[in-house]
Amino acid sequence: MSDTPSAATRAPAPGRAAFDRDEQRRRKREAVLRVAASAFNRRGFANTSMDDVASVLGVSKPTLYQYFKSKQELLYACHQVAMDNGEAGLALAAAHDGTGLEKLIIYLRRYMEGIFGDLGNCPVLTDVDSLVPEDRANVVARRKRISAATKELIALGVADGSIGPCDPKLASLFALGVVNWIPAWYRDSGPNTPEEIMESFAALLISGLAAPAAPKRQRAKAKPKA
Amino acid sequence: MSDTPSAATRAPAPGRAAFDRDEQRRRKREAVLRVAASAFNRRGFANTSMDDVASVLGVSKPTLYQYFKSKQELLYACHQVAMDNGEAGLALAAAHDGTGLEKLIIYLRRYMEGIFGDLGNCPVLTDVDSLVPEDRANVVARRKRISAATKELIALGVADGSIGPCDPKLASLFALGVVNWIPAWYRDSGPNTPEEIMESFAALLISGLAAPAAPKRQRAKAKPKA
Repeated sequence: MSDTPSAATRAPAPGRAAFDRDEQRRRKREAVLRVAASAFNRRGFANTSMDDVASVLGVSKPTLYQYFKSKQELLYACHQVAMDNGEAGLALAAAHDGTGLEKLIIYLRRYMEGIFGDLGNCPVLTDVDSLVPEDRANVVARRKRISAATKELIALGVADGSIGPCDPKLASLFALGVVNWIPAWYRDSGPNTPEEIMESFAALLISGLAAPAAPKRQRAKAKPKA
Repeated sequence: MSDTPSAATRAPAPGRAAFDRDEQRRRKREAVLRVAASAFNRRGFANTSMDDVASVLGVSKPTLYQYFKSKQELLYACHQVAMDNGEAGLALAAAHDGTGLEKLIIYLRRYMEGIFGDLGNCPVLTDVDSLVPEDRANVVARRKRISAATKELIALGVADGSIGPCDPKLASLFALGVVNWIPAWYRDSGPNTPEEIMESFAALLISGLAAPAAPKRQRAKAKPKA
């Protein structure tokens, strides 16, 4: 999972990073985003000001404004990171040569990894309504494409027999609910590691969606007949 | 499902309702809540004022203030309705004489019914951070009790063999994600009825959680041996 396109294309060779201006700017922007996401989480979006974010970073407001012009822009950037992860997962699924169910799980695992990794815990991702209208429209449209792609993976699994008979649209809303609700409860300080959570959720999704015949087929494969 | 305690104890006999002052006040309060929830959904909590709510209701702001003192109080009331439904579901589950898995599904269906019914579509339920601190603490504490009860139902199912081996805490977060994410996407105008959605989600949860042996046992029961 380390070969996601976005990470690979953005980061320059390790030794050069400290001298690369674009890379420095990118890192500072990421640091701002992380601090802002964490502040939104603790106090709520409505109760967090640009002053608060600048104060935690120990920078002046004009310095902060070089990276983000407003709270709404920060919130929009949080959403974009989440959707980048969803799309990176869809790209991995497309590249995988396997069943629809396998592709679906590869995609959702990558999506979850991003939720755990890039922004730590970000409950604010449930909030699209505080975005300015144009950004809100972009987020809603991109989410719709991700939802549609999720539905297509499930439809593929139903067609190839790896997923049991179901309504692919409703099954996709079921699976996305599991994933999208993570930011509402996950805390770094909680008892379970991201890996444990992903393992458990993937297992529940697989047993929920897998065609009843699938395990039998696997058993049959494990004991080939002469 | 019509015999939920809250509905039964609150509503007086039909003929008297129109003359009952408490009942009138309760109905008006509900109407305000419904309008407010719908406005929060369309414009976002941050972008909706008490003026907006009063204007949609066609009442003065002082009249509105007789029912709710602030936006935050309206949001709190939305959360309370959702948690009432969760707790009504838990009560139904406790009264049901059956397996842990059966109890879990009875509870989650009732919880979902409430989400579809009482407040229509209420994405604002993902927002606890806009509540005033005391209300936020109440909502968080009550949600924690509901989460803990969900985990206990799953643990019961694992113990009685109706649910397969799993971490009850993570399985409860899985199931609650499915349910709690509904307000983020459900619209009255959408292609699926609440009943179709509940049926599909209950089936996916059952196949995801059921112990592999359970279907066999049911089959055995259907064909009793002589």
